[in-house]
Amino acid sequence: MGHLDLPSRHLERAVEEISSLPGIGSKTALRLALHLLGKPQEVVDRLAGALVEMRRGIRHCRACGNLSDHELCPVCSSGRRDASQLCVVESFREILAIENTGQYQGLYHVLGGLISPMDGVGPSDLSVDRLLERASGPDVREVILALSTTLEGDTTNFYLHKKLSPLGLEVSTLARGLAVGDELEYADPVTLGRSIAGRVKLAP
Amino acid sequence: MGHLDLPSRHLERAVEEISSLPGIGSKTALRLALHLLGKPQEVVDRLAGALVEMRRGIRHCRACGNLSDHELCPVCSSGRRDASQLCVVESFREILAIENTGQYQGLYHVLGGLISPMDGVGPSDLSVDRLLERASGPDVREVILALSTTLEGDTTNFYLHKKLSPLGLEVSTLARGLAVGDELEYADPVTLGRSIAGRVKLAP
Repeated sequence: MGHLDLPSRHLERAVEEISSLPGIGSKTALRLALHLLGKPQEVVDRLAGALVEMRRGIRHCRACGNLSDHELCPVCSSGRRDASQLCVVESFREILAIENTGQYQGLYHVLGGLISPMDGVGPSDLSVDRLLERASGPDVREVILALSTTLEGDTTNFYLHKKLSPLGLEVSTLARGLAVGDELEYADPVTLGRSIAGRVKLAP
Repeated sequence: MGHLDLPSRHLERAVEEISSLPGIGSKTALRLALHLLGKPQEVVDRLAGALVEMRRGIRHCRACGNLSDHELCPVCSSGRRDASQLCVVESFREILAIENTGQYQGLYHVLGGLISPMDGVGPSDLSVDRLLERASGPDVREVILALSTTLEGDTTNFYLHKKLSPLGLEVSTLARGLAVGDELEYADPVTLGRSIAGRVKLAP
């Protein structure tokens, strides 16, 4: 569609701003802008207000680094979580994903990234010291490294494992293997190999 | 993905508002919200401001009904348009599309809809009187009905043609036929039939 000559600078600016969002091209941006034009002023004000207030109001949990409206996030301030488990994640996005499974009742620790020499990210750029401090606390018995199964994730796993070992804790990583619903025939060989090596004994 | 338990009410509200936009589900809304969270406050303020100002600042051209920042839209206020042609469209969206072709130099008239007895839209709900008034002006020599090729569009074409005939103007509708790039084999029979009936003589 290229560049349309829009009849309004206001509309042009709105389309420009909307299309700066990821995955939204100028055609979709125009469609969204025209949609909003057809709505009452209050609807647009409410959307705009929600965005501004979100950006202004959200902070990071003082304890784990999760997103939060308060000093402590809902996970850390809940009295019902198991303080003996600490799950290390790259960012708050992974906390959302893990919480969504309903399978984990412990606490989290947000690293703020992964070690990546290529991108110039080293351990000192991540909240590793704070992790070691928390892991040394009296309650923690297990640290679960829930990082991506990428080169950077593996590097970070390796580094953290080395740092955590002296603390005498149990350190684990997520199981690797076939995704639920995967057809064996189409599984990639590395994953399939891992799932054979890590095979699980069935009860007799 | 269903309903995620988000750790922040602010984030929840933003996701809710974003996902009220057409074609944006809760997963995309969350992705967009998290993207904005990673941006400086100014970026979010600018986006929100652009939306609010667009909604507040845009009006309709007093002459043709096109979107505009001023009393008259850029088309009507341009001194270079041909005032002898009046192109009747359903809404400002069609003006965008036609302007984008670069093939039309006349003026426009926005009807504000199409006649649709099923939806209870009659001629009195559209700016038909204003069209007849404009078409009676001294400059206008041709009225081009550029409406959708739907039942509602055809009904409106028929009605307007009847109303416009007494004025002694040329009244035309858009050519119907094969889309440029269409393969004849796959053209629908109605369109193909129309393009045969409306065949164009080649220069000898």
